[in-house]
Amino acid sequence: MRGGKRDKPIAGTDEVPKAVVSRLSLYLRELQRWLRAGQDTISSTQLGKTLGLSDSQVRKDLAYFGQFGYPGRGYRCDELIQKIKRILGTDKLWPVAVVGLGNLGRALLGYRGFTHQGFQIVVGFDIDVRKIDQPIDGVPIHHLRELPEVARQRGIRLAILAVPASAAQEVADQIVAAGIEGLLNFAPVSLTLPASVNVVSVDLAVELEQLSFAVVKRASREAGQSQLDTRNEPSV
Amino acid sequence: MRGGKRDKPIAGTDEVPKAVVSRLSLYLRELQRWLRAGQDTISSTQLGKTLGLSDSQVRKDLAYFGQFGYPGRGYRCDELIQKIKRILGTDKLWPVAVVGLGNLGRALLGYRGFTHQGFQIVVGFDIDVRKIDQPIDGVPIHHLRELPEVARQRGIRLAILAVPASAAQEVADQIVAAGIEGLLNFAPVSLTLPASVNVVSVDLAVELEQLSFAVVKRASREAGQSQLDTRNEPSV
Repeated sequence: MRGGKRDKPIAGTDEVPKAVVSRLSLYLRELQRWLRAGQDTISSTQLGKTLGLSDSQVRKDLAYFGQFGYPGRGYRCDELIQKIKRILGTDKLWPVAVVGLGNLGRALLGYRGFTHQGFQIVVGFDIDVRKIDQPIDGVPIHHLRELPEVARQRGIRLAILAVPASAAQEVADQIVAAGIEGLLNFAPVSLTLPASVNVVSVDLAVELEQLSFAVVKRASREAGQSQLDTRNEPSV
Repeated sequence: MRGGKRDKPIAGTDEVPKAVVSRLSLYLRELQRWLRAGQDTISSTQLGKTLGLSDSQVRKDLAYFGQFGYPGRGYRCDELIQKIKRILGTDKLWPVAVVGLGNLGRALLGYRGFTHQGFQIVVGFDIDVRKIDQPIDGVPIHHLRELPEVARQRGIRLAILAVPASAAQEVADQIVAAGIEGLLNFAPVSLTLPASVNVVSVDLAVELEQLSFAVVKRASREAGQSQLDTRNEPSV
């Protein structure tokens, strides 16, 4: 047990809300899109616009991490990209393990889409002996019991958990015991893990709500459109 | 081809950025949490706080959809929950189909966690004849070719795509042909679909960035902690 001042988080590291970090990812994508489109600079208004965020929100989010941008000129895209990548830790490539090689796990092994975002899946694990020692899409496969050794050898600190819900807690415990520090959890269960391990779970309900909103919106727009049609073009 | 004024989106339905809709989901979770904790009202400051959003951002987001809240008293939790659910379309229960019954698909069939958020998985589809006609966790399974008929019978407008990447586009085409209006895509591929179909894809890179940030932050905090330890407690 420790007491006194040292328990207070160090300023600028601990007080950042998760949602701010999520928005950093969105800013990064937007900046990369602008840079690809040949734009060298961007204002906080422009950066927030397609995300539906006000310029002051953008500035407030970035202010958690320091002073960026140039008065009257906005941000330099390449500079802010590098700074956000450094904040997110993705200025270097993270080797990632996939644990559980069902359809999703196997699909992830073959997915190269986030390599340029700083993550590379370098190894897969399973307990099904039929899957072991047969590389999938060039990625080597090991038995889960070899995770501690492979993680240490390859410097793996992040893992994706893609096992069925029934096995998730037990496998997550093994992953944590292997020294993995961050876990992306696809199993639809709430995991109980030590506070020292960072867990991100994909919330399906939130994603589904985006869809139901869009479907309802479209239906109501088409109903409105059809009312307009009726008003302007009486049936003949 | 249509021209003139009717092509303009109807105010208040079409101009809502996706990020605002995402935040509605977060507001909804936060309001539900407050209500469970016995709080009847909440201010925009309180509603934004754990999400790292300013009170003005919260008010601006909600203003897309109308006038909520009471001056000087904030929002009534139960009332705002109902209003957000109506906006998101989740004031009624949506029957959802899962297409592709590998590990993830099967895990979803057994997952009841988002039923109280307005979504219920009522049927699964696959092309593997061994999986068909054997209910999984009580959910009936059909061959994919029966999707149009089952979707019509059960009023299914949303589907979750959980097939391997290699099959995703072809199966998505079939889902769209069956009249499904919203698709939650777990396959790590970018789907090409008609504009009339709403697609949400889970962006793994964004999720992984949350983890890398947290891991880097923890490492830097522990380094800082250990510096403090050294300063305050010289080794004996």
